[in-house]
Amino acid sequence: MEDLEIRAAAAEDVPAIVAMLADDPLGARRESLEDLAPYLAAHARLSADPNQHLMVAVRAGRVIGTLQLTVVPGLSRKGATRSIIEGVRVHSDERGSGLGTRLIEWAVDASRRQGCQLVQLTSDASRTDAHRFYERLGFAASHVGFKLQL
Amino acid sequence: MEDLEIRAAAAEDVPAIVAMLADDPLGARRESLEDLAPYLAAHARLSADPNQHLMVAVRAGRVIGTLQLTVVPGLSRKGATRSIIEGVRVHSDERGSGLGTRLIEWAVDASRRQGCQLVQLTSDASRTDAHRFYERLGFAASHVGFKLQL
Repeated sequence: MEDLEIRAAAAEDVPAIVAMLADDPLGARRESLEDLAPYLAAHARLSADPNQHLMVAVRAGRVIGTLQLTVVPGLSRKGATRSIIEGVRVHSDERGSGLGTRLIEWAVDASRRQGCQLVQLTSDASRTDAHRFYERLGFAASHVGFKLQL
Repeated sequence: MEDLEIRAAAAEDVPAIVAMLADDPLGARRESLEDLAPYLAAHARLSADPNQHLMVAVRAGRVIGTLQLTVVPGLSRKGATRSIIEGVRVHSDERGSGLGTRLIEWAVDASRRQGCQLVQLTSDASRTDAHRFYERLGFAASHVGFKLQL
């Protein structure tokens, strides 16, 4: 895990991020590498928002992981700011290497630096390995996550 | 439910919002009406962010409900934008009146107007009445929600 860099994703990183999003049992049905334009538009929107942090993990010039951290101010819990982790992916060649842990630890540290009092995420009910992973990192499976497709 | 207005929360609405956040089995342990300063600071931060919508439901000049809607761009799902609902509260005098439904319908419509493809929220595992409420409104309990206190 030497020489690993976790940095903000540039537009040039978008194809590698999309490839990781698609290389996943759920993502395979939802992503398309044929037209990158909507992904690049989303990257531009994220880059312009100071509360959004789309990150890549890079080693030897190769993008091997990604996650998105969103900082969300709020009134609840005495005006607490929370952060939300989305879109965590580790390249298939790198699974089991501890990179997922490194990415989540980065997100937790970044949340703390930005004054967040809570980090949250949801994981599809089918991803039982991911659930054990988050519990090992100290997260509590205290909530039910609801989604409505529009 | 006549003459109900759902509008952006002003600083003057913050005491009524905090009172509703505190009048709740979980909120009672987490909120404090003694010092409104952190809540007012959070309100100012939310008001300055175009992706944040802290709303109140008002009837006859009285604040009777609230929710927070956050618009989150992202790369996943072909660059889909999603929205996240947090801090839904209905005044104790108004429960069972359909106001919760009106608030969520407002959030779903607002999400659609802003081009979101997905609306999501998490609900504490103990709030089983809320879970039935969201499922009646078409939400799927497809995810596990994890939280880490910092």
